[in-house]
Amino acid sequence: MKRSRRDFLGMLGGAAALPLAARSELVNPTGYSRAAQASGERKVGYGIVGLGRISMGQFMPGVRISQRSKIVALVSGHRDKAERMAGRYGVSTQSVYNYENFEEIAHNQEVDALYIALPNGMHSEYTIRGAKAGKHVLCEKPMASSVAECEQMIAACRAAGRKLMIAYRCQLEPTNLRAIELIKQGYVGTVESIHSADGFNISPGEWRLNKKMAGGGPMMDVGIYSLEACCYLTGEVPVEVSGISSVIDHDGRFQEVEENLVWTMRFPSGIITTCQTSYGSELGNTFHVSGSKGWMDADPAFIYEGLHLRAKGNGAAIDQPTDDPSPRQFARQADHFADCILENHEPKTPGELGLRDMRLIELIYRSCQEGRPVKVS
Amino acid sequence: MKRSRRDFLGMLGGAAALPLAARSELVNPTGYSRAAQASGERKVGYGIVGLGRISMGQFMPGVRISQRSKIVALVSGHRDKAERMAGRYGVSTQSVYNYENFEEIAHNQEVDALYIALPNGMHSEYTIRGAKAGKHVLCEKPMASSVAECEQMIAACRAAGRKLMIAYRCQLEPTNLRAIELIKQGYVGTVESIHSADGFNISPGEWRLNKKMAGGGPMMDVGIYSLEACCYLTGEVPVEVSGISSVIDHDGRFQEVEENLVWTMRFPSGIITTCQTSYGSELGNTFHVSGSKGWMDADPAFIYEGLHLRAKGNGAAIDQPTDDPSPRQFARQADHFADCILENHEPKTPGELGLRDMRLIELIYRSCQEGRPVKVS
Repeated sequence: MKRSRRDFLGMLGGAAALPLAARSELVNPTGYSRAAQASGERKVGYGIVGLGRISMGQFMPGVRISQRSKIVALVSGHRDKAERMAGRYGVSTQSVYNYENFEEIAHNQEVDALYIALPNGMHSEYTIRGAKAGKHVLCEKPMASSVAECEQMIAACRAAGRKLMIAYRCQLEPTNLRAIELIKQGYVGTVESIHSADGFNISPGEWRLNKKMAGGGPMMDVGIYSLEACCYLTGEVPVEVSGISSVIDHDGRFQEVEENLVWTMRFPSGIITTCQTSYGSELGNTFHVSGSKGWMDADPAFIYEGLHLRAKGNGAAIDQPTDDPSPRQFARQADHFADCILENHEPKTPGELGLRDMRLIELIYRSCQEGRPVKVS
Repeated sequence: MKRSRRDFLGMLGGAAALPLAARSELVNPTGYSRAAQASGERKVGYGIVGLGRISMGQFMPGVRISQRSKIVALVSGHRDKAERMAGRYGVSTQSVYNYENFEEIAHNQEVDALYIALPNGMHSEYTIRGAKAGKHVLCEKPMASSVAECEQMIAACRAAGRKLMIAYRCQLEPTNLRAIELIKQGYVGTVESIHSADGFNISPGEWRLNKKMAGGGPMMDVGIYSLEACCYLTGEVPVEVSGISSVIDHDGRFQEVEENLVWTMRFPSGIITTCQTSYGSELGNTFHVSGSKGWMDADPAFIYEGLHLRAKGNGAAIDQPTDDPSPRQFARQADHFADCILENHEPKTPGELGLRDMRLIELIYRSCQEGRPVKVS
């Protein structure tokens, strides 16, 4: 029932080992890029900033199976790795940058947008430098380490006339979209409460355990999925949050960030939610919506593939995994932002949404510190 | 995955319709009454106080398949119903009482103990009157409507030299006992957090919606299972509780008691828990324990049969329903108290435990009212 991060990464390793031709069969040609089907021509060129697990293991393979996106530049502190990836993705070595000559990317006309996949603490700097270099920015979640940084990022992109999207792929993902739609249609009646959890047992030595790099602990990294879900499933923003955090397992991992955090939220309509996150135990990634006429479970709810919705309410019972293999969520995300750029739309998950969540996260942390619920003003 | 109360009651209807001979085959002759196997003779005589769903549908059928318990008297305001049940259980009509002549039960030497299955608001009165009549008392949960009542009940039983047990059957039930034992053995490593939920969509007109009869809403009635579970699974008592309650569905049911309540608890070792309860939506009845080395789920966790434990941690993975058909939990409970009476033990779930939980419930309600966490002193 619960799938550990380890199981999941192992599974991805298996998928990544498929030959390209086999992987391309996984692509569903419909649904995720209306514009691409209409024109089929112009692709948005992405510069990848940061070559870590998510960019190399998910986003770049996702772009490869996308319809309107392509990889045209790389930014990395590791020249060898960057050249290896450049070779794999057909990127010219002249389009491989490092963090010192990053600004030269401004002169690379192939690069429309940057995908920022650096440690959280570097998101704001490279979003701002990217916008100043004239590029649109798709920034990984969490948007940054603080509300102040989020505000600066939004201001920089606005000043440069560039678009800013936060990589909240779940808001483009079929299981989560179906859940939102079913709730809107009244499948569970009136939503009464939601529980959501996301957490895993982190390996020692990860940058995520460094406060300066990560901005915070599991709340910033994966708790944000539960926070987001409570908002998009209800269509509301909480009016009050209350949290408790703890460090139990004194094995040296948790010198700087929390190990566990649980929090509750009260929403304007009276909906109340409980959420859990952890770097010290396997919580899986789930939500459970309870309504006056039924319930809805997603387990897993937020990971890269294999999402599974179960529900019983107004209408036929639902018990079905979503056929949406990795890295399709990332292909969809790249193409959504490409559509926004090419058709001059605002992204579905703009910087303002990342800022809203960062405000909520700061309030949850404040609640933990002050030992009291905090109103959302 | 979730089973509604309605599904469940339907299922019980089916089991109750079995002929007695077939039902007696459901009895496991080992395990739940050590003393009965040793002597096999003397049975404890129960007087049933209150002929409602739980006594007629569960406890009395449970006593019928028990080893050391028998039904010898009935107390009810409905003479017809009482005489019908007396006939079914072989109780003399002279041993049928009402709430006016209740004290006469003192002279009935067959009655060792009373099973109090009245609305919560009447538990204290009949426990105290029962103790004064010289009877031991097995009282349904929640113990009463207030801490003050619980204290009076304990004092009355102590003054009368009678035993007092609260009907927390989960603490005698195999799935919950196995979970406790596995956690003690380190199966999930260090427990980090727990989530537990128990709630259902209540029918209009139930006495549970009347504050005076019920003492409170779903927190008192079913949230108490989650509260208890967080304590017996961790072996700890919380040091702080924080709750939010809400009424959303203004259909007239929730004039006096809360509709939904979620709460968090902080335990001395750093364990943090989230719990949900509701009378306005189907939450099922579950717990999920997250530890440093694994996790453990019970779903359902607290209902009368079909409990199902899933776990992955140190040792073989577990995915197994418990073969413990209704009404065996009630048979086990009746026999445990019978053992206590015959062998002069203290019950595993004495009045002091009911009092502890009532204190916690009052603090959770206070936290909801005052909008702040409350320390457990």
